[in-house]
Formats: sequence, structure tokens, C-alpha cells
Amino acid sequence: MLHVVIMAGGSGTRFWPASRRMRPKQLLSLVADRTLLATTVDRVRPLAPPERIWVVTSEALAEATRDCLPSIPDDRVLGEPVGRDTAACVGWAADVVSRDDPDAVCLVLPADHVIADEHRFRTAMEVGVAWVEAHGGLLTFGIRPTRPETGFGYLRVGDARGGRDGLTVHELDRFVEKPDEATARSYLEDGSYLWNSGMFAWRAADLRSEIARQLPLLAAGLDRIAAAGAEAGRDVLEQVYPTLPKTSVDYGIMEGAARRWTLPVDFGWSDVGSWPALGDLLAADPSGVRTRGRVVALDASDCIVVGDRVTVAAVGIRDLVVVATPDAVLVVPVADAQRVREVVSALEDLGWDEVL
Amino acid sequence: MLHVVIMAGGSGTRFWPASRRMRPKQLLSLVADRTLLATTVDRVRPLAPPERIWVVTSEALAEATRDCLPSIPDDRVLGEPVGRDTAACVGWAADVVSRDDPDAVCLVLPADHVIADEHRFRTAMEVGVAWVEAHGGLLTFGIRPTRPETGFGYLRVGDARGGRDGLTVHELDRFVEKPDEATARSYLEDGSYLWNSGMFAWRAADLRSEIARQLPLLAAGLDRIAAAGAEAGRDVLEQVYPTLPKTSVDYGIMEGAARRWTLPVDFGWSDVGSWPALGDLLAADPSGVRTRGRVVALDASDCIVVGDRVTVAAVGIRDLVVVATPDAVLVVPVADAQRVREVVSALEDLGWDEVL
Repeated sequence: MLHVVIMAGGSGTRFWPASRRMRPKQLLSLVADRTLLATTVDRVRPLAPPERIWVVTSEALAEATRDCLPSIPDDRVLGEPVGRDTAACVGWAADVVSRDDPDAVCLVLPADHVIADEHRFRTAMEVGVAWVEAHGGLLTFGIRPTRPETGFGYLRVGDARGGRDGLTVHELDRFVEKPDEATARSYLEDGSYLWNSGMFAWRAADLRSEIARQLPLLAAGLDRIAAAGAEAGRDVLEQVYPTLPKTSVDYGIMEGAARRWTLPVDFGWSDVGSWPALGDLLAADPSGVRTRGRVVALDASDCIVVGDRVTVAAVGIRDLVVVATPDAVLVVPVADAQRVREVVSALEDLGWDEVL
Repeated sequence: MLHVVIMAGGSGTRFWPASRRMRPKQLLSLVADRTLLATTVDRVRPLAPPERIWVVTSEALAEATRDCLPSIPDDRVLGEPVGRDTAACVGWAADVVSRDDPDAVCLVLPADHVIADEHRFRTAMEVGVAWVEAHGGLLTFGIRPTRPETGFGYLRVGDARGGRDGLTVHELDRFVEKPDEATARSYLEDGSYLWNSGMFAWRAADLRSEIARQLPLLAAGLDRIAAAGAEAGRDVLEQVYPTLPKTSVDYGIMEGAARRWTLPVDFGWSDVGSWPALGDLLAADPSGVRTRGRVVALDASDCIVVGDRVTVAAVGIRDLVVVATPDAVLVVPVADAQRVREVVSALEDLGWDEVL
């Protein structure tokens, strides 16, 4: 049966000061009135009942995550003792869902993306899931690029292998690192490159086979955790999890997988990876000012202004991101918005933990 | 005897969002850890004992003003039922101080200025007070200009008449409206023009004589209030005060005064009239970033950044004023900082009174 596994472990420093250690991006209501995580769960509810929707987060965030998802049984929210990258995360999740359902098929999704067309999203997910259920192998969903984006990794599609509903599953030719601008333009024109979305489908057993073959140390650790069982196993989990090899699904498992697929999809996707990316999802006034919360903008242009429980007055400014919360404020040019990571580092160095 | 009268009725919209209706500029700790008002009182304490230091504010702010000044007897804080400009304010204060001391000499000072050299300030005040005590008439202190400022009115000095301690009292030739830049430059070179500081000295009786002569309606109203006395008089005050003519000391009294003086002074004065004026009082880092509160500035230049109980991160920005409080934030270019008034108007129009 289909189990949806939502990866909700992100720390989200890119949305400081709205995001904090204990309130990362997936727990923020950045776009709508619901958190990104709750919206992600809502989106997959037509695909699986609540007891087959699993959320993997950090142990520290497990309680806040459960509070955010009253419709999901508490024991479906899994808390990792520490983050060990995505390969360990999906391997552990595969074992947990297999406990009750040895034939489980996993649809693995990030918790913090925005999808414009939910109907097309679900159709695509169903096609991908049906493919791996029938043919095995590991499938990654690839987003058809809409701009020469240099901030994402890409997938190159191989031969078409089949599909339905106007969607075609391809062999996955290879993973491609983040390109420069010229290369990104060539990918866009070429048509055989997709954005690497971080959404996957596989049978739990197929994933575990690939882990056993390619990452034997990870497999051994996961076996110890699985052997300890759910109830008495928390101590073993706490002991073993920090020792698991740290690698990603893409590089640790997908790249070397014996059978790997990609399904090109197009349903209005954003990973909301930065304040400017969020700005793209907010309506702009005629001067290009995009706001969220209580904002007074006078003669401002091309700004993103967010008032999170704070009133913000922006006068005569341009090309700026302004984000205000009751205890911390960020002001940065739109073009430099990624430098928020430096701010978080500086705050750590200063020991100003109360705003981290 | 000398009575110091501190005018503390300002609304201070120019310092929004730090200043609010119920916490105007004089009650803010903009520069030091003490409020501007408390600092003003500290500055005059060597000139007069607490019972001869009077503070005139609005009735609405009287309690907050008393809380801010524990060393001043409560009945020395006078609450105007409504603001009727400075002529009414100084006239009323003259009557109140004359009740116990018919020979009172008043030194009238704004509550919200910053003075660098307190010793020279007090010397100048003593010279001015001694002059009017000896010669009568109304004296205004004039600040020797240090730049071609177009934001102030000016005084033109007349003939020198005497003085001491290196200070010379002059006849006051005339008041001059705020000049344009070229005129301000000529005033600076000319040397006979002074900034109109809003600081005055006079015998209470002389002020009341001038009011009686020039502003008979104001005099009549003040007489009614004085006749009602201090205790039973609150009702009369509430009735009559709103009917008093609304005019300033400068235009209503000083311009037409029979005997008027000015004392040119130079003690490092700022009226702290705007965020940039405050910035001038804050230390600048090598990039010209001036901060107050908890601020992280990365590659910012020529900015004024104020975190009022809020941590502010300013990255890669230039020529901006950023002021953050827990419920409201302002971002505006330094050159447009006076537009904060428009912000306050916009907030009034929106009915967002909780941040006003």
C-alpha cells in the first residue's frame, strides 16, 4: 500500500528572522494561513489515509510538528535523534513503514514546497507510484524548468519507458551539479534537463536493497535499529542513529541505483528556497512591492516586505527585503538575500541565541 | 529666585516608531540610558532645587512624566488640559511659579535637546538669568551656527549690551524665517545670525506684562485661571485653557516685546529633530554605520540602525534609517527621513492606532 513519507527536518536558516531553530520553515505560514507542512499534508490526504502519512523530523521538533498536524496520529511523526542527511532518513522511514506493511510503497516528499496545481500534482504522484509498484526501481520526480535557474541541481532524462495521463516515465540518465548561467540556459533550451525536486517513489524493500548494496554501513545500522523494534527500540535508535553514514539520497543511493527512473512533471512548483523565492509567490503592487502582514509602503519599489506580528513602514526604498518579527528584523538587498546565512552565523558567533 | 520651567509637551512624531502618542520623544532614551527629559532635569539640578524645577506637559502625559522624574515633587509637573502652543504654556507657568514667589525669574527650556558641554551650558544660563534679573526684558538664547542649516529659524543679533564670563548679551534685532541653502550659507559667514533655540529667560512679572500688552485675550484667560487658585482651580483650568489664543512665544510675545535680548551661546547643542540628527550623536563605525541597541551590520554603509528591544540585522544596505521596535518598524533613506510624518498620517488614516 502507499505510504507518504514527508521529510520535515529542515532548519530553514534562509528564512531568518521568521524561521528559528525551534520554528523552522516548514512550521511557518509563509504563503497561506496554514504552515507549509500542514499544507503539504493536506495536499496528500486524497492519496493516503492519515495512518499512512508519516512525517520525519528531528526529535527536538517532534512535539511542535505533532501540534501542527492534529489529523495525523502522533506515532506517525518520527523524531530523528540527530540529522544524518536524507539517505538515513528515507532508509529509517522505509523500515518503520515496512513493520506493519512489508509491501509498502513510499512516496517521499519535502515538507516545505509550494505547489500551485494540486490536482496535477496528485496525478503525477499516482503515476510515479504506480510505475515503481509495477516495475520496481527508484523514481525521482523532475520538474520541467521554467527559467535558467542556477540554484538547483538538474536531472538529465534518458529513454522514455512508458506512462499514462500524458506523463512519461524515463530512465534517469544522470544527476547534474548546479550549473552556471550559460549552462542553465542551454539546459532550458535542450529540454532534456529537469530540476531535481527531492521527491521520490519506491517500494520500501527496493530502497532497502539498494542501501544494502551501496551503503552497507548504513544498512547495518538500520538493521540494528529495526531489530530492536518500535517500543524498546528508542534507546537503540538514540545510540545507533548518530553513527549512521551521512549522505544524501541523490548521491548515496540514486546515482548508483541499478534501476532508476525520472518522471518529468509540471504542476507549478516552488521550493520557496529564499526570501526572493517567497516574494515570487506574493502578489505585487504596481511598483513591484510584495507584502505579507501589516505593511505601509510609500513610494517603495521592487521590495519584499514581511511584517510578522509587526507593522512595517517602508518609505522610498527599493530592491530590499525587509522582514520584521517582534524580536528580530532583517534588512537586505533582494540580490543579497542569500546572505541571511551569514547573519545567522554572526548571531551564533555573538552568542545571541535567543533570536536563533 | 530662579525657577526652571521645562516644556515637555512635544508629541514627537518624527521619532516614530520609537516615539508614540503616549511615549513621545522627551520620554525616550534616544542617546543615553536616561530619557531626554530626565537628562534635561539632571542638567539644571545645579541651578535650582527640585521644588523650583517645573515641567509642563499634557495632562495625558503627566503621570508618565512624573514616573520619569522621581526627584521632582509631583505638584511641580503641570498638565495642560490641551496644547495651546508655547505662549500660553509659558504664561501659565509664569503664573504658577509666581503664586509662591512673586519675584520669580523663569529659565524656560525644551525637554528634548541634547547638550554636549553641560558646564558651559550652565554658565550661559546663569549669565542670561542674571541679565534679566538685573535689566528686565525678555531674553532668548541663540546658538552660534556650525553649519548652513535650513531647518531652523534664525535670530539676528543687534548691539552688544554687556555680559560676563566671555558671553555678551545683545539686543535682539529680529527673528528670521527658515532660510534657503544660499541664505543659510550667508548667515553662517556673516556671523550675526544665531539659531533660534527655544530657550528663554525672563522675570515672570515681565513676561506677564508683555502678554497683557500684546495678547490681552491670553492675559484675560490666564487671569481667570490664576484667580481660581491651585486647588479648586482645576475645573476652571479645564474650561478656560482650551479657549486660550494659540500662538508661539517667538511670534506672539518676543517679536513685539519692548525690551528683548539675545545671548549667543555655544555649548554643543542639538535639538535632535530627526533620525539623522540623532545619528549625528551616535558613534559611527568606519563604514559610517551608526547604531543603537542590538545590531548586526554586515557590509552596510552610512546607515542609522536602531534596535529598540529588537535585534536588527542590516546586510549590504546603504544610506538607510532602520528603526525597529517590538511592534513597528521603519525603513527609509536617510535623505527622506522627514517623511516619517507621512507614515504617521498614513497609520492614522488606516486606523492602526495601536502603533501610534
